[in-house]
Amino acid sequence: MSSPPSIDYFAFKVLARQGRARAGLFHTPHGNLLTPIFAPVGTQATVKAITPAQLEELDASLVLANTYHLYLRPGDNLVKEMGGLHQFMNWQRPLLTDSGGFQVFSLSATRNIDEDGVTFKSHIDGSLHRLTPEKSIAIQENLGADIIMAFDECAPPYERDYNQRAVARTHAWVQRCLKAKTRPDQALFGIVQGGIFPDLRQESAQFIASLDLPGYAIGGLSVGETKDETNSMLEIVDAILPINKPRYLMGVGSPEDLVNGVLRGVDIFDCVLPTRLARHNAAMTRTGRLNLVNAAYIHDPLPIEEGCACYTCRNFSRAYLRHLIAAKEMLAATLLSIHNLHTLLQLSRDMRKAIQEGCFDEFARDFFESRKTREKEDQKQ
Amino acid sequence: MSSPPSIDYFAFKVLARQGRARAGLFHTPHGNLLTPIFAPVGTQATVKAITPAQLEELDASLVLANTYHLYLRPGDNLVKEMGGLHQFMNWQRPLLTDSGGFQVFSLSATRNIDEDGVTFKSHIDGSLHRLTPEKSIAIQENLGADIIMAFDECAPPYERDYNQRAVARTHAWVQRCLKAKTRPDQALFGIVQGGIFPDLRQESAQFIASLDLPGYAIGGLSVGETKDETNSMLEIVDAILPINKPRYLMGVGSPEDLVNGVLRGVDIFDCVLPTRLARHNAAMTRTGRLNLVNAAYIHDPLPIEEGCACYTCRNFSRAYLRHLIAAKEMLAATLLSIHNLHTLLQLSRDMRKAIQEGCFDEFARDFFESRKTREKEDQKQ
Repeated sequence: MSSPPSIDYFAFKVLARQGRARAGLFHTPHGNLLTPIFAPVGTQATVKAITPAQLEELDASLVLANTYHLYLRPGDNLVKEMGGLHQFMNWQRPLLTDSGGFQVFSLSATRNIDEDGVTFKSHIDGSLHRLTPEKSIAIQENLGADIIMAFDECAPPYERDYNQRAVARTHAWVQRCLKAKTRPDQALFGIVQGGIFPDLRQESAQFIASLDLPGYAIGGLSVGETKDETNSMLEIVDAILPINKPRYLMGVGSPEDLVNGVLRGVDIFDCVLPTRLARHNAAMTRTGRLNLVNAAYIHDPLPIEEGCACYTCRNFSRAYLRHLIAAKEMLAATLLSIHNLHTLLQLSRDMRKAIQEGCFDEFARDFFESRKTREKEDQKQ
Repeated sequence: MSSPPSIDYFAFKVLARQGRARAGLFHTPHGNLLTPIFAPVGTQATVKAITPAQLEELDASLVLANTYHLYLRPGDNLVKEMGGLHQFMNWQRPLLTDSGGFQVFSLSATRNIDEDGVTFKSHIDGSLHRLTPEKSIAIQENLGADIIMAFDECAPPYERDYNQRAVARTHAWVQRCLKAKTRPDQALFGIVQGGIFPDLRQESAQFIASLDLPGYAIGGLSVGETKDETNSMLEIVDAILPINKPRYLMGVGSPEDLVNGVLRGVDIFDCVLPTRLARHNAAMTRTGRLNLVNAAYIHDPLPIEEGCACYTCRNFSRAYLRHLIAAKEMLAATLLSIHNLHTLLQLSRDMRKAIQEGCFDEFARDFFESRKTREKEDQKQ
């Protein structure tokens, strides 16, 4: 097959920089991504409680789906048979799949890891399965996302010996992934691991950067360590990864995490937080959270956030949302998911604009100031 | 207050007739209704699993909400405080509220009925409440729907003595409702009762018709009697109700019920069936139902119904819907609700068109033929 090299599909341009922050343009077979960008999570081939049309109205452009879940149900072969994940879930914009590694460790009750891969029991029916770097790539090729991830091992952040072993395995496995990969229309991102250990992070970033991949991910952060530790790991990795390739901070997605990440050179984020909080009755705003089950909102005619341009805030009061929650109506999860996703998508767009206009430092300063002000107000009440 | 008489707000014109079937235009303060029309049910101020924007995309024009539920939660005073039900639930097209009577009998575990009204226990918290014709109207005026219903008693269809008493009460109560009513921008519909008893139905229709109301409802059908009994009651009532007023068959909403109703002079329908079936994994089509949890659909790339113009059928396969159901994803209920509502809304529009084009007899014949063909095919399999 005389396919063009993958670089044609996945060119990345940094259009503006301010400090470490970057505004970029990342080409993919299903359209361009304007970075910084937040990717809503569609674990089981659906962003929970939201239609693809609603995601398009939110102007989401990248959606993440989980290899572990889709491999187990409905199965990657079925997805392939149905024309691939874009067609199956009716999302014609870019998709990203993870490698399945993280879920094997976080969801499967029983697993055995060896140098070749991981054997684990399904969290659905207890059946036995095995993932290897080659198998992860085969599954991800069947799913057909634009961006696919190398199979890695994510160790608990504070265990040095474990992290050392996990980094070595992650490095061996990314090379096997590269070898196993056959589709030129998918970008394979390598993942930097190393817990909270500066030397391991440095070693991992250097090795992964040496592979000349179309993009780089930073894994194993926001899994229990402090914000300061996350930030200092990001700074180490940022200094090593090539500047002309996109960087993806995996599983991170509170508003402050996004701003902290962009300040340290990150381009792509994903997180279940906005949709998970929505299903637990919480609205995310730039300055904090509202728990809408609170009786304080029973008579509140205001939208979640005044001035917010999302469908929910343009049309519904806190009193109505509170009623939907009390009445256990599914619409509550839908409307809150729309608002929460809008919060992160709009924050990403605003950061991009600020970087392009050269005022991102002030933007970030104002952002953290307004959060502090809000916290003080909340404490007074 | 020098308000115009309600007839200005609620003019009804029969634009075309074929046999007993009619295509009409019903004016309401929130817009015109083109009949025959099906009203999706938004029991708790939301059509379950659907946003108002999705309802608009379906081109629904009348939505029903339940007085009993909204009185108990969030309370009609709160809804009024929030600007009324249209504003509260963000539905700017016409709304209809029922009287609460039916739910008191079907949902409340304990109730005591007397000539003045009904005392009952809330199905939510067991608290004691009382509904009378005057209270039902006061609640419905707080809610502010365009069409409101007289407080009635719906008796089990086969109990003659009970139906006789219920008809008498229903007639006494509609007069009290008329007296209690103050808002000129709401149309009060009276309700014909009488179970499956021809003489009671006749008596009730004659009395209710004598009140010169802006519209008439037929209650107590599709609550356990046979289709033939429903049809023969409809024929009795149809012959008595004035031809120049809209007729509303309450709580009825399978495709065949709609066609049978229109054949017998009915203009308006409502039912929870399409959204309830959706939450139980069933798709409604004109010719029957598909239970999408069935393993037969695992590999099925077809839409629910080929040629269907709804969002779900334009974009998703049965295999995907079956996956969403197996994975317990909320999107399944949303996508099936959209399809099922479309089925009834499109059937209503097609009936209207056939009546206007003078081919409704053929339309109805083809409709029932294709259902029979489908049933035979299903039996063969």
